[in-house]
Amino acid sequence: MRFLAIGDVVGRPGRNILKSTLSKLKENYKIDVVIANCENAAGGNGLTKKVADELFSIGIDVMTMGNHVWANKEIFSFIENETRIIRPANYPEGTTPGRGYNVFEKNNFKFAVINLCGRVFMENLDCPFRKIDEILRKIECPIVIVDFHAEATSEKIALGFYVDGRVSCLYGTHTHVQTADEKILPNGTAYITDIGMTGPYDSVLGVDKDIVIQKFTTFLPVRFEVAKGKAQFNGIVFEVDNNSGKAISIERINFTLEE
Amino acid sequence: MRFLAIGDVVGRPGRNILKSTLSKLKENYKIDVVIANCENAAGGNGLTKKVADELFSIGIDVMTMGNHVWANKEIFSFIENETRIIRPANYPEGTTPGRGYNVFEKNNFKFAVINLCGRVFMENLDCPFRKIDEILRKIECPIVIVDFHAEATSEKIALGFYVDGRVSCLYGTHTHVQTADEKILPNGTAYITDIGMTGPYDSVLGVDKDIVIQKFTTFLPVRFEVAKGKAQFNGIVFEVDNNSGKAISIERINFTLEE
Amino acid sequence: MRFLAIGDVVGRPGRNILKSTLSKLKENYKIDVVIANCENAAGGNGLTKKVADELFSIGIDVMTMGNHVWANKEIFSFIENETRIIRPANYPEGTTPGRGYNVFEKNNFKFAVINLCGRVFMENLDCPFRKIDEILRKIECPIVIVDFHAEATSEKIALGFYVDGRVSCLYGTHTHVQTADEKILPNGTAYITDIGMTGPYDSVLGVDKDIVIQKFTTFLPVRFEVAKGKAQFNGIVFEVDNNSGKAISIERINFTLEE
Amino acid sequence: MRFLAIGDVVGRPGRNILKSTLSKLKENYKIDVVIANCENAAGGNGLTKKVADELFSIGIDVMTMGNHVWANKEIFSFIENETRIIRPANYPEGTTPGRGYNVFEKNNFKFAVINLCGRVFMENLDCPFRKIDEILRKIECPIVIVDFHAEATSEKIALGFYVDGRVSCLYGTHTHVQTADEKILPNGTAYITDIGMTGPYDSVLGVDKDIVIQKFTTFLPVRFEVAKGKAQFNGIVFEVDNNSGKAISIERINFTLEE
Ligand SMILES: [Fe+2]
Ligand SMILES: [Fe+2]
Ligand SMILES: [Fe+2]
Ligand SMILES: [Fe+2]
Ligand SMILES: [Fe+2]
Ligand SMILES: [Fe+2]
Ligand SMILES: [Fe+2]
Ligand SMILES: [Fe+2]
Repeated sequence: MRFLAIGDVVGRPGRNILKSTLSKLKENYKIDVVIANCENAAGGNGLTKKVADELFSIGIDVMTMGNHVWANKEIFSFIENETRIIRPANYPEGTTPGRGYNVFEKNNFKFAVINLCGRVFMENLDCPFRKIDEILRKIECPIVIVDFHAEATSEKIALGFYVDGRVSCLYGTHTHVQTADEKILPNGTAYITDIGMTGPYDSVLGVDKDIVIQKFTTFLPVRFEVAKGKAQFNGIVFEVDNNSGKAISIERINFTLEE
Repeated sequence: MRFLAIGDVVGRPGRNILKSTLSKLKENYKIDVVIANCENAAGGNGLTKKVADELFSIGIDVMTMGNHVWANKEIFSFIENETRIIRPANYPEGTTPGRGYNVFEKNNFKFAVINLCGRVFMENLDCPFRKIDEILRKIECPIVIVDFHAEATSEKIALGFYVDGRVSCLYGTHTHVQTADEKILPNGTAYITDIGMTGPYDSVLGVDKDIVIQKFTTFLPVRFEVAKGKAQFNGIVFEVDNNSGKAISIERINFTLEE
Repeated sequence: MRFLAIGDVVGRPGRNILKSTLSKLKENYKIDVVIANCENAAGGNGLTKKVADELFSIGIDVMTMGNHVWANKEIFSFIENETRIIRPANYPEGTTPGRGYNVFEKNNFKFAVINLCGRVFMENLDCPFRKIDEILRKIECPIVIVDFHAEATSEKIALGFYVDGRVSCLYGTHTHVQTADEKILPNGTAYITDIGMTGPYDSVLGVDKDIVIQKFTTFLPVRFEVAKGKAQFNGIVFEVDNNSGKAISIERINFTLEE
Repeated sequence: MRFLAIGDVVGRPGRNILKSTLSKLKENYKIDVVIANCENAAGGNGLTKKVADELFSIGIDVMTMGNHVWANKEIFSFIENETRIIRPANYPEGTTPGRGYNVFEKNNFKFAVINLCGRVFMENLDCPFRKIDEILRKIECPIVIVDFHAEATSEKIALGFYVDGRVSCLYGTHTHVQTADEKILPNGTAYITDIGMTGPYDSVLGVDKDIVIQKFTTFLPVRFEVAKGKAQFNGIVFEVDNNSGKAISIERINFTLEE
């Protein structure tokens, strides 16, 4: 099965580049399943019902989230019933709406999608190492995809090795910068530290660059705004053996599109 | 002028791959100047006189450092007199040995090299934005290279835009993972968020992966050891116009070598 | 001269207990000057003109601030002209409105008030150690009071020793919990790690306790609200020799008042 | 039953003041049980067998620890068999030696001692809120004492309220500065944010003050050394109703002793 995983979709520029290019990408790369990190899809922060519907309608099959999952409160009204949205699994049990993983089916093959947050330089969620052990014990299909939304390269690479051979692909999100370390780990897991961001190209992580520079130099309050102009697409294509769940290939996709 | 910048050299595996490949690389890419981040060159942490001499002797022209600059105390005995080693410029004035930038000459053209540390998720050093303004006021040659040793992608990209048009190239180091966002910014500065690591391939940032996993899962004390096995080279080649100091090109270099 | 320094005033409960008790406190303790940390005075976050006027009118002479100084944007409209409000001096030079210290006069004696923020576990402002050296070089009166708004006990105690003999009193704010380590340091500076909070007693740092517990246990978004009920007063009284500027005494004040 | 809880014992100065004063303190305050935080008892960092034996022999009944529990590796050789040493309970299950709580008996009454670490500004251990729920379900005696070793005042106060009425006393350690907020919470739990440090008085958290100032001002490597001179004792005495487990009183103890 061939997957396209899309890096953090940021605001309207991110959604627009998907509208313009996604169906063609799916065709060109013979994609079976599209997974996108959508924690910044609505106005740069969080997700609304309207934005989710818009993105599902253009061909996204599964959405993963991250530390900004709750940034737009509207998500509390639909995450419980929307089984295609996966939020980080290591939020506390019992109090967190939504689901941290789910099993889907395409072309008669099942695949699981797991979302986890890192903890280094981030919130004190539950241990992602133990949480993934716990989830993997419950999942029965061989194809398992993990979006590990984390800041520190050490934590991401360590979790990659930790699940090597037990998941089909573990890719990172959150830094909004694509890394060039895609590889297949010794036991068959496709890995990349970060798949990047799909949003405004001429920006700091999707935000207007002058505003971010102002923040770093003055420490005064600013209002972050999604940048304008040319957009970039960041993602990966990977292929998984349907029976073994082992990765066959992983390739970075990275292009820009004028407005 | 054509530069090769090499990502954090980690321990013996990092030095060995340079010994085997550097002269050939210089030839192939017609390199005039080689700059390497050497904060992890000695045993994975810091720098010794012997290791510095070894690396200068195989063709490194300038060494930059980072948050691990003082990790091996031996550096205090030679950094003051070794004008080819540049440590982060935003350590406090007056108490920090060594220099935060220097101007060199090659083929009758001058070039400056500046090293700075980020502050997000790192130490509370002086503001890198104001520090680089201060340094750029003192530098008179048009070719200026910056190694910005930082963790957060936002801080790195923001500083890149901040100096766009005022330096020839600003590249990031420290995360030990090469990013795939090399570009020339609108006003002529070559930029990449991180040039990566030159050291053990099958590792977590150069460290034995099992030790790092043990640390993340137990929180018990461990002794980090440089990993063994296949090595990787991570770096960039960029070309700068000798008169204007503007970047002409930037290209990632990324290969592995069996032991 | 005798000073009363009041710990972070939080919302209406903090203002009300001051209205009820301040004039009596001043009389009982023969107070010449009242300084209050007001970073949380307006609704628990920041300061408005109305709240500032209210607090000046009941007998506060000088207001210091902290990391929440900009939390209510209204402050940008009056901080520049209100010479009795002192914000942290180690915000960047040139871009920060207001002043980081000022010299006042009472009973024919001058006294300076300085406000600084810590950096450990907080924002990357300028070095408070170098900044206070710089400010002390400019101040000519012997009586100098410092509100060091910081999180880490190590940074607060270290700065206290650093300025021992050079300022009359350095007291901490920000943790909202009064410490029991008031003392006069060897060279004559009165010191206490934190003077505490003046606000709702039955609360977590002034905030409704159930909301804070919910935040810690669920990691879901919550809206912090100032707690209700009984209020507490936290502060110190210290006496300074008018001619030498040395501290003569330091005493904690700590009481509660039913609504 | 009457308890004496002693704040982080730091090095020889901390041990010496206990040798000189503990038996008298026990007599004066009619103490039944002495609990001491010993994470810094051996040379300022960690605990050795010799130091533990020395402290048990002078009248300490139970030792609690903190984030420095593993700082001296020797502890791995005896923590498993020494049932009177309690390390933070929220280290991961299954891989952590020693115990996070234990039940003891004195004068025919049982009492439990629990040790937990905070997470704010500290390591990503397991959630202390859920962990204490889990432990309290297993403990059957009414008298329960908690040493919550944490940095942030918010986390400490929140956990205090969270267990109010379910434990006899929750006191904080780790900041090495005693707070002045001792109280009995509405449902009967004695509470104080930090009981302080027992060690060198003229120091920064027990460490030589000049070394700490040097660290804060230069960011160069330093070797922390336990300070010399006058020592301080910091702790609390609290009384608990033997049958209900409710707190009857809590009082701070805070004195210094010349060498
Ligand atoms: Fe994101
Ligand atoms: Fe994120
Ligand atoms: Fe490095
Ligand atoms: Fe580094
Ligand atoms: Fe405050
Ligand atoms: Fe504050
Ligand atoms: Fe301690
Ligand atoms: Fe501690």
